[in-house]
Formats: sequence, C-alpha cells, structure tokens
Amino acid sequence: MVVNQRFPVTKKYRERTSMDWILMEDDQLGLLQVYTGDGKGKTTAALGLALRAWGRGLKICMIQFMKKGEDYGEILALRKMEGIDLYQFGSDRLITKTSVHPEDVELAHRALAFAEGALVSGEYDVIILDEINVALFFGLVSPSEVLSVLRKRRKDVEVIMTGRNAPPEIIEEADLVTRMVAEKHPYDKGVIARAGIEF
Amino acid sequence: MVVNQRFPVTKKYRERTSMDWILMEDDQLGLLQVYTGDGKGKTTAALGLALRAWGRGLKICMIQFMKKGEDYGEILALRKMEGIDLYQFGSDRLITKTSVHPEDVELAHRALAFAEGALVSGEYDVIILDEINVALFFGLVSPSEVLSVLRKRRKDVEVIMTGRNAPPEIIEEADLVTRMVAEKHPYDKGVIARAGIEF
Repeated sequence: MVVNQRFPVTKKYRERTSMDWILMEDDQLGLLQVYTGDGKGKTTAALGLALRAWGRGLKICMIQFMKKGEDYGEILALRKMEGIDLYQFGSDRLITKTSVHPEDVELAHRALAFAEGALVSGEYDVIILDEINVALFFGLVSPSEVLSVLRKRRKDVEVIMTGRNAPPEIIEEADLVTRMVAEKHPYDKGVIARAGIEF
Repeated sequence: MVVNQRFPVTKKYRERTSMDWILMEDDQLGLLQVYTGDGKGKTTAALGLALRAWGRGLKICMIQFMKKGEDYGEILALRKMEGIDLYQFGSDRLITKTSVHPEDVELAHRALAFAEGALVSGEYDVIILDEINVALFFGLVSPSEVLSVLRKRRKDVEVIMTGRNAPPEIIEEADLVTRMVAEKHPYDKGVIARAGIEF
C-alpha cells in the first residue's frame, strides 16, 4: 500500500475534487469498513457503495442480519441489478436486549456461516454485512465469532459492516470507521419511515 | 405531520428493526436533508437513497456541483438506471479557497439555476444537490442564493445536500442533518481512492 501518483484516473479525480487522495497500489480492495452511530445513512451508504461498485462491474453480496421481506425500496432495486446478490436472515419478531428468541440467535448464526462462505469463495469483490453491528449489540452473535469469520476472508474482498452500536472489538479490527451522527432531527422520538426514502 | 400507526408496511418495518419510528401521514416527502462532515459516506449515502427511491419507482434527479466526467462508478451505474437523471456542472480545474476561477463560479450558478428548475418542475420526487456544501464553502455560490432557491421548491420534493463544511445557514434551514465523522482512518493525509469503492 503506497502512494502511487501514476494511476491516471485517480490523479484526475484528485484535481477535480480539490482533495488530497492517498492512492493504493493496484486499486487494491480488502479493507474492513464500518458504518455506525445513531445518525441516518449507514445502510444507505452501504447501498450507495454497492451501486458504485456495480457501476464498475464488481460483484457484490449483501447479507442482511435481522431483516426479512421484500418491501424495502433497496430490495426492490437490488433485485433488478444483475451482479448484486442479496440474502436475508431475519424474522418478523421484535428483538430487544431483554427478549431474544432462540430462533433469532439461530438465524444470525446462519447469516454468519453464509457470510463466511461468501468471504472465502472469491466470488465477490464487496460483501456487505448489513445490521451485523445490531446483531452483535443484541448478543445474537459474539464479537469473537464475527472476528473469526472476518479474519478468514480473502484479502481482496472489501467488507462493509453496518448498524448502530458497533462493539469496540469491531472498531479495533476495522480499517475505516465512520460514525453517522444525528446532528439535527425534527423528531426526538425516533426515525421517520417513508417508503422510498427511509426504506 | 403526525404519528400514523395505521400505515401497515411501516408498522411491520418497525417491528422488524426494533427501532422507534415516527410515521408521516401519506408517506410525505419534502424534507431537506444534509449529509456533511469529514467522514466517508456523504455522496455515497445520497446514492443509496437514490437507489432506494428508484426501487420504489420514484423519480430522482442528481445535480453535481464541481464534478465532471463519466469515470465514476456511480455515474456508470446511474446511466443504466431509468428514472434517475444526472447532471454535472464542473470543470477539471483545481479549486481552493484562495484560487477560484470565474468559470467555476459561473458553473456553480448554472447548477443552481438548473436545480431551481428541477425543484419547481414537479418532475422529481427526490433531488440530490451533490457537493453543493463544498461549492458554498469555496464561495462559488452564497448561502442566501441557495436558500432562496431551496425555498421555492415544491413542498413534496425531498432534497438531499451533500459535501463537507455545510455552512450554518444551511444547517439551520435543514430538517435533518447527519454528520459523517471519520472515527478511524488508516491514513491521516487524505482519502483513499479506489475505483468502484471511493469513486
């Protein structure tokens, strides 16, 4: 990983955007990115990254923890996009810190096992583990179980983990952590849910 | 804008995600959202929102300030997606606080005039003003010019403004502000640029 000013596309990009870019040799993928925090835009940013990677012809796999059902704008979109695979592992059950059903623990472990397969397969360039941080927070899977799977990954697979409350073990392991902070929100009670915008 | 627990899709979503949702009557769009901060994921989240809205059949317009060229993963993707229109207003020139070329001022004003047309037209459900916060930071357009345009918008158009350094006037006007904070980054000098991931 070195500064490589010879990569022409990126140099042009740097000039355009007036920012300082660090360029990676051979455009190498393989970082572990985490989007966490209480603000909006975590899963949304992962979807944007999927879109961008798809535009470049990369292969993407999105594995959703604790989510189920087709009635999401993103699901409806991804189903139309060849080159993006989507797998859901969730129930309709409400999960809280104090009420965790064994089936949800089972589903999260199944998701993790599936993720392991995808991470070692060489089939994907980008793998998104959506809401895995929340599954960790609720104790459906443990940080050590997740770290063990992450460390088995092919070194050219970029991994994106989303969800609020990412535990310290994951923050420590990650190469890049972005915290989405809700700086201004018109409602103090929760998140707005509007079809096409929030889901 | 009221809590509307009768909206069935959203109620189901609420149960699934264990979060408290505030529901808006008739799924009403029209908020002004700002993604700012030094962390990654601002334009990326806007792209994810475009993807989600597109999945729902909404019409989206992305207007890019200070950007030019097709060699972006997101551009390559959006060009393939019917229902998302993309317009760029930028030059190849490097822009800094101390060196602003008149043509870049002109281009930013053209972008703003174009945005005004889109915001009042009724043709779009979601309008993304990409990097407009940066254009404001560099003084290419002024906060009062931008506010004047934003306030003319149809009230059912959702507007997303991206870019670091959103000025206080915009934060004040916005309904929702999310700050992307770089909590961990392997490089202290800049941003990694890899095709398909960062651009």
